[in-house]
Amino acid sequence: MRAAPLLGQPVADAWTPRLALRAARFTQAGQPLDLAVLRFAHDPAASAYATRLSAVCDAVGLGFREVALPSGTSTAHALDALHELNVDAQVAGILPMLPPPAQVDASALVAAIDPDKDVDGAHPQNAAALYLGAQGWSPAPATALAVLELLSAYDERAAGRDAVVVGLSNVVGKPLALLLLRENATVTFCHCQTANLADHTRRADLLVVAAGRPGLITGDMVGASATVVDVGTNYVEGRLVGDVVYEEVAESAARLTPVPGGVGPLTNLMLVRNLLDLADASRVGDYYRLAETRSPR
Amino acid sequence: MRAAPLLGQPVADAWTPRLALRAARFTQAGQPLDLAVLRFAHDPAASAYATRLSAVCDAVGLGFREVALPSGTSTAHALDALHELNVDAQVAGILPMLPPPAQVDASALVAAIDPDKDVDGAHPQNAAALYLGAQGWSPAPATALAVLELLSAYDERAAGRDAVVVGLSNVVGKPLALLLLRENATVTFCHCQTANLADHTRRADLLVVAAGRPGLITGDMVGASATVVDVGTNYVEGRLVGDVVYEEVAESAARLTPVPGGVGPLTNLMLVRNLLDLADASRVGDYYRLAETRSPR
Repeated sequence: MRAAPLLGQPVADAWTPRLALRAARFTQAGQPLDLAVLRFAHDPAASAYATRLSAVCDAVGLGFREVALPSGTSTAHALDALHELNVDAQVAGILPMLPPPAQVDASALVAAIDPDKDVDGAHPQNAAALYLGAQGWSPAPATALAVLELLSAYDERAAGRDAVVVGLSNVVGKPLALLLLRENATVTFCHCQTANLADHTRRADLLVVAAGRPGLITGDMVGASATVVDVGTNYVEGRLVGDVVYEEVAESAARLTPVPGGVGPLTNLMLVRNLLDLADASRVGDYYRLAETRSPR
Repeated sequence: MRAAPLLGQPVADAWTPRLALRAARFTQAGQPLDLAVLRFAHDPAASAYATRLSAVCDAVGLGFREVALPSGTSTAHALDALHELNVDAQVAGILPMLPPPAQVDASALVAAIDPDKDVDGAHPQNAAALYLGAQGWSPAPATALAVLELLSAYDERAAGRDAVVVGLSNVVGKPLALLLLRENATVTFCHCQTANLADHTRRADLLVVAAGRPGLITGDMVGASATVVDVGTNYVEGRLVGDVVYEEVAESAARLTPVPGGVGPLTNLMLVRNLLDLADASRVGDYYRLAETRSPR
């Protein structure tokens, strides 16, 4: 039996109008919101990504700004540009395109984002909140949220199931493992040093692959009842492919995301959802600050 | 064949003089260092623990202070007491005994520790550094470090092996998983919602149990080549026991830590090692600050 494809576009199409309604409330209240991207001119892939993100903002009714810095920019200059976005009230979300050129300190850049405008959950304060399971909402990395959202849209529960995550990055593997643990999955972390990768992938109920290695997961490495989410984005001979050998795994797994067309369409929408959640949270903050101002003493 | 016991005391005995030498360097330089414990009067277990910690500081040649707050203390009062320790130059490490009484905000307390005096790696900034794999050293929770140190002392490598961690706490399970991943183990997180716990524990090369449930791991749940580390500290009929049924697992595993006498003796020494590492790091900081002051802008 051939695996059912888990397509991201129908899920994204359902999210877009919901997010547009939320964005419209801000616009109608005279508080239009912008997403700002800090981009370094050295990176053509980042430029193409910014164009796609701009289209998503447009569809939802958010403003979009792109601050392009010269490729020879210094850390200090990049921090200045970031600070301008931090203090700009119309900018509700900031995304620096990583990695920056070698001379720019990426950690300093991420740590300088206003945590309340951190749409990709990259700031250490937001990472700590996710890791420590802090009370209240905090933004998680958008790609990890996109995987959760896709699974949820196709009624894939996580609780009590064996999830295997291949790849340990701070933007996908690690936050995704924490999100799956929060949903009570049993989670195994695999990586390039895992000796017996196939033993782990074969016993997975949910297999999420985000290793950045095309061809890593072959048909024999996946169980017949498995749901496989391919987060790999690799360009091979000019074509976008995942980490999974699609034609093989489609014959062996129960459900499988294609690349492109799986997680991808949801990732930018989750960035936008984070932006709106952050804007809502800071509005609640404003409300409380207002209430405090009004209360006697 | 009976499992070889992994005893903590010989490892601790080897660490004590090494740490004493490092502490003596500070004392000899006229900079004696204190560990300060912030304790709430409601908790007799915390009081007994403070006594043991005091003895370890004494053995290493560090000062020890205990600030006992009344059990009815407010968050504001506890924060004041903590702040006094933060600004006291002789206090190089601060450990609030958790959990505090219900009316005290534990998160606020932890977030108010000077991250440079955070001997148990509890502050969100230090948690984020561990989680994100930040460059440079940062303090990790002492119990997790004690497990790593015990394994290392008995030449148990982690790289390429299957580690299974049972229990998801912020002080043991989660930081330990990150430390094992850093050493290139493949790590599975199990918890009370794991449906098939025995399937996971049986395939573990390294099994670390920190669930706080006496009797959780029985002899049939462990493989013959497994190394089992029991981090459980449960009081059953007045006696300290781990999460592992010792007599059973001793007959089935290859190596096993007893409780008491396994990880326990090392935990306090790892707190002290964190304190000395923090003091060294801040001395380096002083050196750099001095150099900056001297350099022509």
